[in-house]
Amino acid sequence: MTLSSSLSVNALSEALVQRLIDDAERLHVELNRTAGGTIIVDAGVNAAGSIDAGVLIARICMGGLGRVSRRIAFDAAPLWPSFIEVHASNPVLACLGSQYAGWSLSATKEQTGGKKFFSLGSGPARALACKEPLFDELGYRDRHDRGALVMEVDRLPPQVVIDKVLNDCGLAPANLVIAVTPTQSVAGTVQVVARVVEVALHKTHAIGVDLNEIVDASGNAPLPPPSPDGVQAMGRTNDAILYGGRVHLTVKSDAVAKKLANELPSSNARDYGKPFAEIFKSFNYDFYQIDAALFAPAEVWVSSLESGATYHGGKLERALLDAQWQAS
Amino acid sequence: MTLSSSLSVNALSEALVQRLIDDAERLHVELNRTAGGTIIVDAGVNAAGSIDAGVLIARICMGGLGRVSRRIAFDAAPLWPSFIEVHASNPVLACLGSQYAGWSLSATKEQTGGKKFFSLGSGPARALACKEPLFDELGYRDRHDRGALVMEVDRLPPQVVIDKVLNDCGLAPANLVIAVTPTQSVAGTVQVVARVVEVALHKTHAIGVDLNEIVDASGNAPLPPPSPDGVQAMGRTNDAILYGGRVHLTVKSDAVAKKLANELPSSNARDYGKPFAEIFKSFNYDFYQIDAALFAPAEVWVSSLESGATYHGGKLERALLDAQWQAS
Amino acid sequence: MTLSSSLSVNALSEALVQRLIDDAERLHVELNRTAGGTIIVDAGVNAAGSIDAGVLIARICMGGLGRVSRRIAFDAAPLWPSFIEVHASNPVLACLGSQYAGWSLSATKEQTGGKKFFSLGSGPARALACKEPLFDELGYRDRHDRGALVMEVDRLPPQVVIDKVLNDCGLAPANLVIAVTPTQSVAGTVQVVARVVEVALHKTHAIGVDLNEIVDASGNAPLPPPSPDGVQAMGRTNDAILYGGRVHLTVKSDAVAKKLANELPSSNARDYGKPFAEIFKSFNYDFYQIDAALFAPAEVWVSSLESGATYHGGKLERALLDAQWQAS
Repeated sequence: MTLSSSLSVNALSEALVQRLIDDAERLHVELNRTAGGTIIVDAGVNAAGSIDAGVLIARICMGGLGRVSRRIAFDAAPLWPSFIEVHASNPVLACLGSQYAGWSLSATKEQTGGKKFFSLGSGPARALACKEPLFDELGYRDRHDRGALVMEVDRLPPQVVIDKVLNDCGLAPANLVIAVTPTQSVAGTVQVVARVVEVALHKTHAIGVDLNEIVDASGNAPLPPPSPDGVQAMGRTNDAILYGGRVHLTVKSDAVAKKLANELPSSNARDYGKPFAEIFKSFNYDFYQIDAALFAPAEVWVSSLESGATYHGGKLERALLDAQWQAS
Repeated sequence: MTLSSSLSVNALSEALVQRLIDDAERLHVELNRTAGGTIIVDAGVNAAGSIDAGVLIARICMGGLGRVSRRIAFDAAPLWPSFIEVHASNPVLACLGSQYAGWSLSATKEQTGGKKFFSLGSGPARALACKEPLFDELGYRDRHDRGALVMEVDRLPPQVVIDKVLNDCGLAPANLVIAVTPTQSVAGTVQVVARVVEVALHKTHAIGVDLNEIVDASGNAPLPPPSPDGVQAMGRTNDAILYGGRVHLTVKSDAVAKKLANELPSSNARDYGKPFAEIFKSFNYDFYQIDAALFAPAEVWVSSLESGATYHGGKLERALLDAQWQAS
Repeated sequence: MTLSSSLSVNALSEALVQRLIDDAERLHVELNRTAGGTIIVDAGVNAAGSIDAGVLIARICMGGLGRVSRRIAFDAAPLWPSFIEVHASNPVLACLGSQYAGWSLSATKEQTGGKKFFSLGSGPARALACKEPLFDELGYRDRHDRGALVMEVDRLPPQVVIDKVLNDCGLAPANLVIAVTPTQSVAGTVQVVARVVEVALHKTHAIGVDLNEIVDASGNAPLPPPSPDGVQAMGRTNDAILYGGRVHLTVKSDAVAKKLANELPSSNARDYGKPFAEIFKSFNYDFYQIDAALFAPAEVWVSSLESGATYHGGKLERALLDAQWQAS
């Protein structure tokens, strides 16, 4: 595919990044400025963060091309009271060109002078660096003199990692903003749950569907609080999507619509049906042993522009979420 | 009725029109500029358009007085995954003074030098031209030096039609923007489904209710993809409203509230219960043979300020929509 | 608790106040300017007001720290068609530091030269005056040279009350805006229903829970039309919250989450189960005879950051609302 887009995900998210900085107190995030002027926005390491901070970071992470909002359910017996709703304009660019956590950023003990560091970078700055093969497939590279990156990690990045990002992105230190959102934080939970559409597009790509097929994508997923336990916290955000996530895609052809409705839902995965944390534990915490087909929304609706028909697959698993999230 | 309003639907929508132009690439619309400087926004003829383009055009079409948004359902067994939600501030002005497609614009083969052209113009520029008797009834005429018109048609308007609009509106060519949204396009589908409240107000007027009664109006309807077939495409947007549309009106008196709850829902029409495309076909595609009472939302709630009581009529027809829209 | 916040609820709501003034015609509010330049926004005394005016006044009332919006339900058999949805950023500050109607403002017949006046002031200007003991508990005082106050009363405030507000707030007359929203008006109904989260936080405080526990708060409640009868009008907005309100709180500890899920719902009150207007009448319209525990949302979800568990209590009472609000 070639996105052949002149849209700049870093330019489009610049105003949102500025709002994150300007509203730091209201959002309960803390601003850390390096000697060079890079701003590290702590949204859950030492700072409390907030749901609103998570929503704003999710919008930044989608390169300004997504609308992310929180909702309270009004039906009589809701699956869950709070939801994150996501609409992606230019979904492939927003989700895979920007939001996907695909940039591996690590530093050894020697480099950090302390603990070794690892994080998968997400957000628009990925498209300045283009270190991932995915960008060749997308045929997209952003050019902009400012950039923003999101890291789902439990501490602030060491200078060596910041320097690598600056170098790979070709940015002046004062023109980079990095938002840090631990998995176990409120904002971190929000920004992962807000990946419900991105997860759908990533699996779409993984099962061999041409991304040029994707015309529109929206979705939602229930928003649980974070768990203080690391494995449980990761389990929650995954369960929100795998068992509570719903997406509505519009594609070009019926063949693809039918294929996605059948193959996209998480229910196709070998490991489906158990809480994510339990699955993860059963594989001795080896992420790569988990059937990759599990990383998908629970319920999928796919509309085809070829015929106008809409295909439907998967379903929400209320009982599993209740058992995991509700106090007994 | 006299709207006696100094609100200018063209002034209020000007910033939205500018956004449609500025965000053309993101919204997948194409800008065509005539020699005189009129901008024709192609939202589905040669351009792909998008749901977001349709939402923005719907807001323009309501003269800046409506909030239109897309939603993803979060209930366990939704009628449909995606909805268009509409809130009309000053509903009579927004819906009948601006959004209603009431301005007949045609050109003969001789005039176009090619195929004859016909379209019903909608949107705020109607209120500059005031060529429809409806404006006398409303007692409203807008005065503004810029204007925007929406045309639900499958090709760009010929210059002779543009000139007629310019002349009737008293606009300089460079001060007119026309958005073109074919029925079979994504944006076209959105902007028609977004007429769920307008359809309710139009029928309210048609059944003889004084429009001064209307205090507030909101509604929603499910958003299907377009059909590639012209008749089916028209059928879909109608079915969305006739069998899936819900409105909540606030009126002044109980007599009117009761009358509207009883008479407004589409279920009052002779032809109710079959898909619109089937009805249309059964009348040999003669639109004017269809019972006009059919053009109404499926479900109506009407609150009366006189007593504070709310009257309820009609119901959503999930089975009909599923049969029409879901792949078998 | 000490909010120790440098956020200014009056500064944060200033742009919203300006919008209320600028959009007066669209919102159907009337601007009355005193000799000194104070603007009294009539949103329902002589003016008609509107739902949109009520939403904007609710946002002002939350000191710019709340997002308030109207929604139309899309589930097949909704509790009610229209809802007010509230998300409070910094909920204790937004709801108790600003939105709570706690400032008693009265004037005798002698002072007004006519009828005696009484109203409970709400909104950000309360935090400039800090006349209520609650502000000592909150440890918050705003400093700003402009302020806004909301009064739920059926006539415009007399100059003696305006002067008292100006004096207590330390504001120049031209820097104060007062919005007046009668209980029996559309905007008044909206702004009271929008207190669904505030009511929850007020009861949280009343039952002895440390407000420092509160991390996040959202909620919604059905929006009925006002009743023309004063007691019924008050009954409606209360019923909307007591029998139709849902909140989702996030707190720090499981002990508090459990306590709130058990004790917060209105169902804990002695008088629960009857329409508010009936209860009020049964106590001879003596507000202070009503069990204070009744003033709470119907349904409560409370998530704990300590364990990540979510506790659930109470339930929505559809039959009671239908019996009260729907025409028979």
